[in-house]
Amino acid sequence: MQQSAAISRKYLKGDRDKATTNEMRYDWLADRWVIIAPQRTARPDDFVQTPLPPRDASNCPFCEGNEYETPDPVATFFPEKHRRGDLDRPWAVRVVPNKFPAVNFPQDHFSFVDSTEEKDAGKNGSSKIDLFQRRDFFGAHEVVIESPNHVQSLTDLNRESIKLVFEAYRDRLSYWLHKRQCAYAVLFKNVGQDAGASLAHSHSQLIATDVLPTKVGRTIERMQLFESEEGQCLHCRMVADELENKTRVVETTPDFIAFCPFASRTPSLVTVTSQKHQSRFELLDDFELEQLSWLMHRLIRRIEKCYPDSAYNFVIHTSPSRSENPSYFHWRLELFPRLTKVAGFEWGSDCYINPLTPEDAAHNLRQAGV
Amino acid sequence: MQQSAAISRKYLKGDRDKATTNEMRYDWLADRWVIIAPQRTARPDDFVQTPLPPRDASNCPFCEGNEYETPDPVATFFPEKHRRGDLDRPWAVRVVPNKFPAVNFPQDHFSFVDSTEEKDAGKNGSSKIDLFQRRDFFGAHEVVIESPNHVQSLTDLNRESIKLVFEAYRDRLSYWLHKRQCAYAVLFKNVGQDAGASLAHSHSQLIATDVLPTKVGRTIERMQLFESEEGQCLHCRMVADELENKTRVVETTPDFIAFCPFASRTPSLVTVTSQKHQSRFELLDDFELEQLSWLMHRLIRRIEKCYPDSAYNFVIHTSPSRSENPSYFHWRLELFPRLTKVAGFEWGSDCYINPLTPEDAAHNLRQAGV
Repeated sequence: MQQSAAISRKYLKGDRDKATTNEMRYDWLADRWVIIAPQRTARPDDFVQTPLPPRDASNCPFCEGNEYETPDPVATFFPEKHRRGDLDRPWAVRVVPNKFPAVNFPQDHFSFVDSTEEKDAGKNGSSKIDLFQRRDFFGAHEVVIESPNHVQSLTDLNRESIKLVFEAYRDRLSYWLHKRQCAYAVLFKNVGQDAGASLAHSHSQLIATDVLPTKVGRTIERMQLFESEEGQCLHCRMVADELENKTRVVETTPDFIAFCPFASRTPSLVTVTSQKHQSRFELLDDFELEQLSWLMHRLIRRIEKCYPDSAYNFVIHTSPSRSENPSYFHWRLELFPRLTKVAGFEWGSDCYINPLTPEDAAHNLRQAGV
Repeated sequence: MQQSAAISRKYLKGDRDKATTNEMRYDWLADRWVIIAPQRTARPDDFVQTPLPPRDASNCPFCEGNEYETPDPVATFFPEKHRRGDLDRPWAVRVVPNKFPAVNFPQDHFSFVDSTEEKDAGKNGSSKIDLFQRRDFFGAHEVVIESPNHVQSLTDLNRESIKLVFEAYRDRLSYWLHKRQCAYAVLFKNVGQDAGASLAHSHSQLIATDVLPTKVGRTIERMQLFESEEGQCLHCRMVADELENKTRVVETTPDFIAFCPFASRTPSLVTVTSQKHQSRFELLDDFELEQLSWLMHRLIRRIEKCYPDSAYNFVIHTSPSRSENPSYFHWRLELFPRLTKVAGFEWGSDCYINPLTPEDAAHNLRQAGV
């Protein structure tokens, strides 16, 4: 599923913008400058590698018939016609605990209270700062298996099945954030080796923890700062600005907008969010979920048409706060093909070089028929 | 040059530590928790891909004889025996401007003063925060070509040539930071496609800019905080702790230490720094440079033995401050094989999952004979 740099680079050309000078753009939310460098796409490449297909599907643990290879499901979703009655009804979406979890399941199954425990504090008597701080952490690492069949893309599913996938996202985020009171939960999808996937069968993952990652905390502080300075939610303002400006908008529905953000650090990153203020993805109603799954199907089709065989990720950011609808937090989904590599410069400086202007990216995605 | 996840995963097994529970460790400098998750290495993988060799070298712009394909060199280094006299003497290391730069060269060649210019401010009259801030930026993007021959690793060079490469690093960092007064300069090396390289011929790069990346500024604040709280440089303390603890030390020389840091976000990351307080890499003397190039040769050999054909990066962080020897900043070099992919979770949360404990990584690297 992954794409070599050499193959993908031809897709990075801007069609409209004949920019030859690089510029920096400021990502206000992330508090980070990004280098937009269209000149970079012309450079030569020694590494021409055609991606091989993934290994054959005969042993896929996610396929129907191999259910015994995964832990027991924590949730199962059925097609409408099979919802009631039929005991042997086929499933459409299964959610199972990850067999190789990054997160430990809480020992006390009913509470996260007092789960934090610093151990092995390495500081010597006179010092205030401990350079060897470690802790246990608890939560969940789940896999959303998106079809009983060995499909490799959400776009191979019909509309009803895609909506069930999004229902699974909503339900599991709601369970971990609200019923289990986790501090943080994130839903993400890795497609293709370059995006970090290890299995080809279409699936997503949820990680929930009792620890709020530092960067997420910092992002929330930025959102709060914006709201206190401007009297308005950052994403509400961004949505209004993008709708007015139009050049970075990819597609809209009555309730949602998809746009390529002004200072995105990777080429063709698309942000999807609600046009009206909504803090929590997991509070979307059925009609909104249906719209969103329709929109996501089209956006992934656009990515697949613009960047055939490219790996991609998407990530759903929802409010980690316990309050009902905080005025500063607005949920968003970020969808991004993996067309460039994180090299030494980016790794060392956290300053990203994006060779495609977001305006060109949005233009190319709009042009791709779906 | 790159390694598939499936092939590399077998190298990620810890030999000593039979840890089955994941833990979080705090990277104090980066202000970030990292997940150390040894359980993750056992998971299956659909994406088995043997890396293809890079394309043939006949047109390599970095090879001797093709010098006309690069811009004119800004510095050239010769082997000792050819240093003087001989006009047609062969070069050992050439530094040339990058033909496809990420950074704009200053229009006024003698000064960066007033190079910042915000343009196209997108804020409307009543708002204080501009979500569409952009600016020009200036500096340098140079390539250090490390041999006239088509070698693909520093370890294919003899000791004198490696030292010349490190001399080139020192001289060019010194030029941009001190003579040209750049706010920031970083030296980095990308080896293999997964590390972001586009050419196979052994080379490194320097990027210097008039803008200090936000994250670098934040790191400096952390170093200043540590120094003010503890009355000691963060890295001096780290060096002392690692020398005492020993389990994460890979190798030492009289003046330097190489260790796998306690909370590294990628497997087998090695930090190299000086045992005594030194803020600036570019102020190393000849004897120190010789020691360091000897050490780096051995460390890269260890990486190549532990993780054959793996892509890797290294990055040199030196003080961006204008002061001579700030007490809080200590230069360091970070060397890291690219054994895992940055997936959706890491991308969304900036919380990294490292499947190999730094203690096991150091043990494995020490065991690899060089």
